[in-house]
Amino acid sequence: MKRGKIRTKLAKVEADSIVVRGHDLAELIGTVSLGDMAFLELTGRLPSPGESAVFNALAVTLVEHGLTPSAIATRMTLLGAPESLQGAVAAGLLGLGSRFGGPVEDVARMLQSGEDAPRIVASYAERKAPIPGLGHPQHTEVDPRVSRLFAVASANGIRGAHTELMEAVAQEAERALSRRLPINATGAMGAIASDLGLRWQVCRGLAVMARAIGLVAHVQEELDDPVAPEIWRRVEDEARGL
Amino acid sequence: MKRGKIRTKLAKVEADSIVVRGHDLAELIGTVSLGDMAFLELTGRLPSPGESAVFNALAVTLVEHGLTPSAIATRMTLLGAPESLQGAVAAGLLGLGSRFGGPVEDVARMLQSGEDAPRIVASYAERKAPIPGLGHPQHTEVDPRVSRLFAVASANGIRGAHTELMEAVAQEAERALSRRLPINATGAMGAIASDLGLRWQVCRGLAVMARAIGLVAHVQEELDDPVAPEIWRRVEDEARGL
Amino acid sequence: MKRGKIRTKLAKVEADSIVVRGHDLAELIGTVSLGDMAFLELTGRLPSPGESAVFNALAVTLVEHGLTPSAIATRMTLLGAPESLQGAVAAGLLGLGSRFGGPVEDVARMLQSGEDAPRIVASYAERKAPIPGLGHPQHTEVDPRVSRLFAVASANGIRGAHTELMEAVAQEAERALSRRLPINATGAMGAIASDLGLRWQVCRGLAVMARAIGLVAHVQEELDDPVAPEIWRRVEDEARGL
Amino acid sequence: MKRGKIRTKLAKVEADSIVVRGHDLAELIGTVSLGDMAFLELTGRLPSPGESAVFNALAVTLVEHGLTPSAIATRMTLLGAPESLQGAVAAGLLGLGSRFGGPVEDVARMLQSGEDAPRIVASYAERKAPIPGLGHPQHTEVDPRVSRLFAVASANGIRGAHTELMEAVAQEAERALSRRLPINATGAMGAIASDLGLRWQVCRGLAVMARAIGLVAHVQEELDDPVAPEIWRRVEDEARGL
Repeated sequence: MKRGKIRTKLAKVEADSIVVRGHDLAELIGTVSLGDMAFLELTGRLPSPGESAVFNALAVTLVEHGLTPSAIATRMTLLGAPESLQGAVAAGLLGLGSRFGGPVEDVARMLQSGEDAPRIVASYAERKAPIPGLGHPQHTEVDPRVSRLFAVASANGIRGAHTELMEAVAQEAERALSRRLPINATGAMGAIASDLGLRWQVCRGLAVMARAIGLVAHVQEELDDPVAPEIWRRVEDEARGL
Repeated sequence: MKRGKIRTKLAKVEADSIVVRGHDLAELIGTVSLGDMAFLELTGRLPSPGESAVFNALAVTLVEHGLTPSAIATRMTLLGAPESLQGAVAAGLLGLGSRFGGPVEDVARMLQSGEDAPRIVASYAERKAPIPGLGHPQHTEVDPRVSRLFAVASANGIRGAHTELMEAVAQEAERALSRRLPINATGAMGAIASDLGLRWQVCRGLAVMARAIGLVAHVQEELDDPVAPEIWRRVEDEARGL
Repeated sequence: MKRGKIRTKLAKVEADSIVVRGHDLAELIGTVSLGDMAFLELTGRLPSPGESAVFNALAVTLVEHGLTPSAIATRMTLLGAPESLQGAVAAGLLGLGSRFGGPVEDVARMLQSGEDAPRIVASYAERKAPIPGLGHPQHTEVDPRVSRLFAVASANGIRGAHTELMEAVAQEAERALSRRLPINATGAMGAIASDLGLRWQVCRGLAVMARAIGLVAHVQEELDDPVAPEIWRRVEDEARGL
Repeated sequence: MKRGKIRTKLAKVEADSIVVRGHDLAELIGTVSLGDMAFLELTGRLPSPGESAVFNALAVTLVEHGLTPSAIATRMTLLGAPESLQGAVAAGLLGLGSRFGGPVEDVARMLQSGEDAPRIVASYAERKAPIPGLGHPQHTEVDPRVSRLFAVASANGIRGAHTELMEAVAQEAERALSRRLPINATGAMGAIASDLGLRWQVCRGLAVMARAIGLVAHVQEELDDPVAPEIWRRVEDEARGL
């Protein structure tokens, strides 16, 4: 059996230095922002100013959405293990699966598949599956994040082939299915992430890294002003028939 | 029993808008960086330019340290569940406890305790406990991250009472214990985070949010160029006596 | 630096056999129960019939307590990642920390400390800390699990020095604090686990292994008859002021 | 929008009693084993003696497989967070995904699909996908667990339609693909779990609940006789080119 070498291109750790993706960490400290560091980690190079603006915009979109199921899971976990911030955040992140977090990945995968819009729409229609990135259960009229994300991308010169394909898919789907199917926030993020050169396999990771920030904030708030005990009490009372 | 209200100050989610900490998310997108968004989440306000530079510097320091136990746990988890990026990242974050991640919290807690340097040093000496933030197992001579972090803080006007206390603790400890005990990276981070106004309870969260980024990058690399199967094979072969 | 060997006494894995703690797994299959297998894993030997009865009784006590914070976290996580049963169970287990799960460990640690009852009570009184295993927020009168656990232990000859110490601690505490402080379920479990020879460091593990079973059942029920969407909706509606 | 009730059939929690699946917990304590409690949780009724023997045999098979990727992840996590047994176990469980743990689910899903053997084999052949439960990378000749599991099931009267279908699938696959494709341990477990009436959706849960036990034992051993520091050192040394 072939034996592999154990190695990483992400960092070179020496006794007195750490080099991350070819950059001395001591030099990165104070010169690059957290978002640019994330771009460096994922792509192997620092972003251009335009790429930086758009990548940070994408990540910012995903940080905080209120008392989501992830935030509730984080707060419930903290109730039992208040000493373990990392456990509470990890519990919340575990909900970023196929329904939350996964959809951005689904959009990027579709747009990076090499298929054109008619074939994409036909393929989903055949399987009677909804096309990722189109329509929205709540924001039926207009989601202001979508126009904002596309405006930021355009203003920074990032609008590219994947965004055009997403738009073509939306038009083709509206034509084929005869109903309004606007690009939603997930669709915008998957298209723009693809235009930034991010591979679909890590697009779910955008949600994970951004939401980790938000969940730390939920831990802080729960420590000060807890809601988990009240949620638990109501759930248990109702389950008991009280 | 007193019944609580369920509420959060972090976000107000409406059908067509999300307001995060008083700021319309659509306006934050494209105007604030991911690091500044994290500062907003934790403190309730956007940072000044100096605060932004220093907060981002702190977070950047914690993103990537190579094949740490956390990164190994993430990669081992991906081997069994390659479909679950979020599970692999969560597994890695779970190691940011009292030995990794926790120490920054310990430093901040010590510096925010209201005690002065002699009392702090005496209290640790009494319990024969090592003082958090001093000394370093590997970088015995000099850790370039420390001077860099303090330089960035000073240049941005963030050097304050907690950094001064950390320095006083180091001097007092060297005097009392008669050996070199330089401030290490953990000590610098805990002091600077405290000078930024972050509460000790969330200082471990800095490591969690930063490392979440690094672990997504480890997932990406493991998908391309896996090392977990080789680590497993070697561990199992040795355990079998092969 | 001393280099260690990588090895485990838990299993010897060969191409055509697995030996667990000295027992051929193929022979264990069909001859030992799951609870006895757990005893073997933790202690290195199969239990006597009496030990088996008592160990299984302890574990059974911890499997299912309804819609606890752990169960809610599991169900919330499944809502976002329905494809990941293991992630949902892991999220629930993460709440078995210092408040849930940890207390059995605290009792066992106290009883295995080598101190006698007066010293134990004095030490908690000095720190104004509640004594683990005494009193109960809900079952103020009587918790039928307590008498049942002690009866099962006695009937199987497991009643020993730790249970006697727990009773002495309860008497001493009631005398010193002049109020009713009955041994609660946590106290009974920590005492009996100690009399079984389990080390305090893994007593939290009893809750973890037992509750993993219960959380799998919560996943199954949530897939059939979900409550997480309704909990989420109510939480979000109230947070919005609806 | 339809509003749901919050309820569970798993437990009824009152101030002085807990009823689990219709059985008073105080009565279950000391009368049922942990494995039978798991069967009760998953199916809603206590097992017959034969069902008990077979269900426990299945679970016992999955408890301990040595230094697997899950065990390594658990030990690596404990290195950073030694205070959090539950976090270390959760990290290990997160690897029970599509490659480990998932395959038993895949077998059960296939056998519960309502298709017959020729159609099952044809469907996998068409997709050029390997048939779950057949063949084995390591135990090429014979896996003693397989014959043992089938013998225990037969001896207890559990051999049923799913086991027969699994055998028919194996014969059909060997004929169609012209090579030896024996039923492996995963195949035996998926077939027997199906004959026990377990739904495919929770068959991964069998691995999760059983392995939680094994991972607690790995935590205990790692606390006494750690291997994680040595694994880390070797990985990091090699990555540095030392």
